[in-house]
Amino acid sequence: MGEIGAKLGLDELTGGAVGISRALLAEFIGNLLLNLFGCGACVNISQGANAAPNIVLIALAFGLAVYAAVSAIGHISGGHINPAVTLGLASTGKVKPVRAVLYIIAQCAGAAAGSGLLKALTPERAAGKLGVTGLGTDVTPLQGFGIEFFLGFVLIFVVCGVCDGNKPDHKSTAPLAIGLTVTLGHLLAVDYTGSAMNPARSFGSALVANEWADHWVYWAGPIAGGVAAALLYVHGFSAPPVETIT
Amino acid sequence: MGEIGAKLGLDELTGGAVGISRALLAEFIGNLLLNLFGCGACVNISQGANAAPNIVLIALAFGLAVYAAVSAIGHISGGHINPAVTLGLASTGKVKPVRAVLYIIAQCAGAAAGSGLLKALTPERAAGKLGVTGLGTDVTPLQGFGIEFFLGFVLIFVVCGVCDGNKPDHKSTAPLAIGLTVTLGHLLAVDYTGSAMNPARSFGSALVANEWADHWVYWAGPIAGGVAAALLYVHGFSAPPVETIT
Amino acid sequence: MGEIGAKLGLDELTGGAVGISRALLAEFIGNLLLNLFGCGACVNISQGANAAPNIVLIALAFGLAVYAAVSAIGHISGGHINPAVTLGLASTGKVKPVRAVLYIIAQCAGAAAGSGLLKALTPERAAGKLGVTGLGTDVTPLQGFGIEFFLGFVLIFVVCGVCDGNKPDHKSTAPLAIGLTVTLGHLLAVDYTGSAMNPARSFGSALVANEWADHWVYWAGPIAGGVAAALLYVHGFSAPPVETIT
Amino acid sequence: MGEIGAKLGLDELTGGAVGISRALLAEFIGNLLLNLFGCGACVNISQGANAAPNIVLIALAFGLAVYAAVSAIGHISGGHINPAVTLGLASTGKVKPVRAVLYIIAQCAGAAAGSGLLKALTPERAAGKLGVTGLGTDVTPLQGFGIEFFLGFVLIFVVCGVCDGNKPDHKSTAPLAIGLTVTLGHLLAVDYTGSAMNPARSFGSALVANEWADHWVYWAGPIAGGVAAALLYVHGFSAPPVETIT
Ligand SMILES: [Ca+2]
Ligand SMILES: [Ca+2]
Ligand SMILES: [Ca+2]
Ligand SMILES: [Ca+2]
Repeated sequence: MGEIGAKLGLDELTGGAVGISRALLAEFIGNLLLNLFGCGACVNISQGANAAPNIVLIALAFGLAVYAAVSAIGHISGGHINPAVTLGLASTGKVKPVRAVLYIIAQCAGAAAGSGLLKALTPERAAGKLGVTGLGTDVTPLQGFGIEFFLGFVLIFVVCGVCDGNKPDHKSTAPLAIGLTVTLGHLLAVDYTGSAMNPARSFGSALVANEWADHWVYWAGPIAGGVAAALLYVHGFSAPPVETIT
Repeated sequence: MGEIGAKLGLDELTGGAVGISRALLAEFIGNLLLNLFGCGACVNISQGANAAPNIVLIALAFGLAVYAAVSAIGHISGGHINPAVTLGLASTGKVKPVRAVLYIIAQCAGAAAGSGLLKALTPERAAGKLGVTGLGTDVTPLQGFGIEFFLGFVLIFVVCGVCDGNKPDHKSTAPLAIGLTVTLGHLLAVDYTGSAMNPARSFGSALVANEWADHWVYWAGPIAGGVAAALLYVHGFSAPPVETIT
Repeated sequence: MGEIGAKLGLDELTGGAVGISRALLAEFIGNLLLNLFGCGACVNISQGANAAPNIVLIALAFGLAVYAAVSAIGHISGGHINPAVTLGLASTGKVKPVRAVLYIIAQCAGAAAGSGLLKALTPERAAGKLGVTGLGTDVTPLQGFGIEFFLGFVLIFVVCGVCDGNKPDHKSTAPLAIGLTVTLGHLLAVDYTGSAMNPARSFGSALVANEWADHWVYWAGPIAGGVAAALLYVHGFSAPPVETIT
Repeated sequence: MGEIGAKLGLDELTGGAVGISRALLAEFIGNLLLNLFGCGACVNISQGANAAPNIVLIALAFGLAVYAAVSAIGHISGGHINPAVTLGLASTGKVKPVRAVLYIIAQCAGAAAGSGLLKALTPERAAGKLGVTGLGTDVTPLQGFGIEFFLGFVLIFVVCGVCDGNKPDHKSTAPLAIGLTVTLGHLLAVDYTGSAMNPARSFGSALVANEWADHWVYWAGPIAGGVAAALLYVHGFSAPPVETIT
């Protein structure tokens, strides 16, 4: 395969074909559930598409969808279900490039499937834009980028903290901490940017609603923030090795 | 007893009569609490039966009722308190047919008892339909089936993930993860289908309110989704055996 | 001391005077915090005493106050902070009569102190009845008793389940499960009975507001429900002994 | 260095320069995230600066921000991100004076940076006072002091309880318990005092909004309450040493 192939992680594909295909399916399902449940919670069947959003409801739905997905499939794929997580971990070498690219494709496909399913399951009158992300009134694209940067930052900062191999105490509560950090991000940002925190989630909604205004914000922001957090954590805050009991 | 009897699980009845009767009582109480607290939280004493539902309140009540019940009786019966969970696990061979049938009877009886108690404890003026599940405006039965399918899917997917014998880290937080997944389902679906996720819960309400419109949706949806999730998990996502320390 | 003295638990007083006085102080502080934070969350400073209650806010406040108190002092006194818990455990022999009586006195004194503090810290215009419990419109005292019975039942049922010595997996999450069960009870019952679940909490509010209508409901209901749950759990649902690793 | 230097903890600076600078950076980032996410959740982009606050939303945001920050950096600095926590622990000798002073500077700087970032990321029309803390209508400064005293008390009481080295069962859920206690405080106090619980959080907002009315309340209250709780816990409620398995 050669040295470059090893660096890119091509060997993960040939050596463990079952493993990677399971992981891609897991990521696909995780993102499907996220867009179906999270964006679905933005729909208001009784009051229709112009009702004011209930931010606490929406924030809990996205956070608990992540909690559910990571609880179910975290052991298969790592439970990223978010290109910003995948690229954050890739920037520190924990995920190899080829795996990262395949994950992101699976995540975007899952998100699109989830938003498509949601459209099919929602009465047209009430559907509106099915949770598509967009900038709030008077929020500039640069402000939106800044908000999404910190959404990605806080999420990947927590992911690194609770999945740190030298902090085993956090293992049993890691999915909850990650899910509630997603809730946190939405409590802040639903009315700033729609609160993506996650390019795949935003992509799935945008594709199904065919609404692409300021779409770059939802890729650049969380990914830049996620990479910054991962590098900061790995170089500054990693826990020292736990001494093994022998 | 013969080979067929063993497959059906008849031996569980004769061999462990105390065990199964305790388990059935546990399931009965679990479903009683679920319908009493969950449906009771749908009642609005001060504003009466026509008040708009507070979806966050309702979703937290159903989820925390499941969290409470599973915390209290999970070690006795497995804490299914939901025919979709029982049949999902039965489809993978983890629960034998006779036990499954008895569980479902106990679950439906408990739900009916909980809804009956709620009716007795609620002033008639405010009672309304006591949380009976029904399709939202313009939601077709097929859409309702689809929503309930994914409610059952996500619930049993998480149940399989956190109760996987090879993921011991999840054991201490499993009841919380299951309960908050029930909250998640309700955040999405209260205004789509009333959010059953659970045929017994829906049956108990329907019996006491004598309201059976589209009732098949609440059996077919969660059970189909639950069986699909259980089979997918068992065949695709089970964790590999943890190596024992010796 | 004699046989009767031993049964009543008089020896706990003489043998461990430091222990019991610490435990009583712990219960006092726990109930003080519960009434200060829980009842305080019922106050609406900006809209005044006639504002409609925000049930989710109130339910979270009471539940998280219990979570906080049990986390801080559970190891000192058991973290009952509720006469229904104390009497439920006393009915099964886990708490001796003398200790139970002293606990209840400390709990009621703490609740009164908490409600008194709240009165001093709240502008008179906004204070209203400072979270005093009372029956909702058209709710009969018997219905109120029934609701409070099940509030006590579910709380002590969960306490028994998560503090079962043979279910060590629940130990780390027990305070959370207990706290969120208190939240569950309030989600159901704020508009039925004001949701005491706890005679001391109700007593403290009643004393400070000097409002005693239907006060018996808030003692008889939770205590009867708590004793029923404790007896049911101990005789029907206790986990079998965990085998020790040797 | 001499005896006084050792008491003040000067040796921590020279002996472990990398350690203390990492800890200060961790505290800085923790407080930055707290003010950015918590105060940001107080902003209402669509309805503007005069909208009534959603207390549940705000309380969850501050609590989950603390949960996220402690999960990510608790192992580096202890995860105080609050001068009242730092001084409470310092009063019991667990944190040395020099470290305490440096922490508080880092915390205040982080909070100011978080509020400054929030100002830059928020449209001017909607910004209002960006979550500055202030006394509610008719709340006297003394009442405000009392409320903030108990906010500091409950927080540091829980911190001591869940970080008690002799209560290892609490270790995995400590960040959650601390975060949800912050939520508890806000559920009570947003309309009394704006609910600081934390002098640094209040300082950061006050600096950026240049609004200093009653600012002493937000330093004196939480610090007095925190010191009281820490001394009470250490002298009255510390858990006895866990026996080591040998
Ligand atoms: Ca909805
Ligand atoms: Ca109600
Ligand atoms: Ca209030
Ligand atoms: Ca907002």
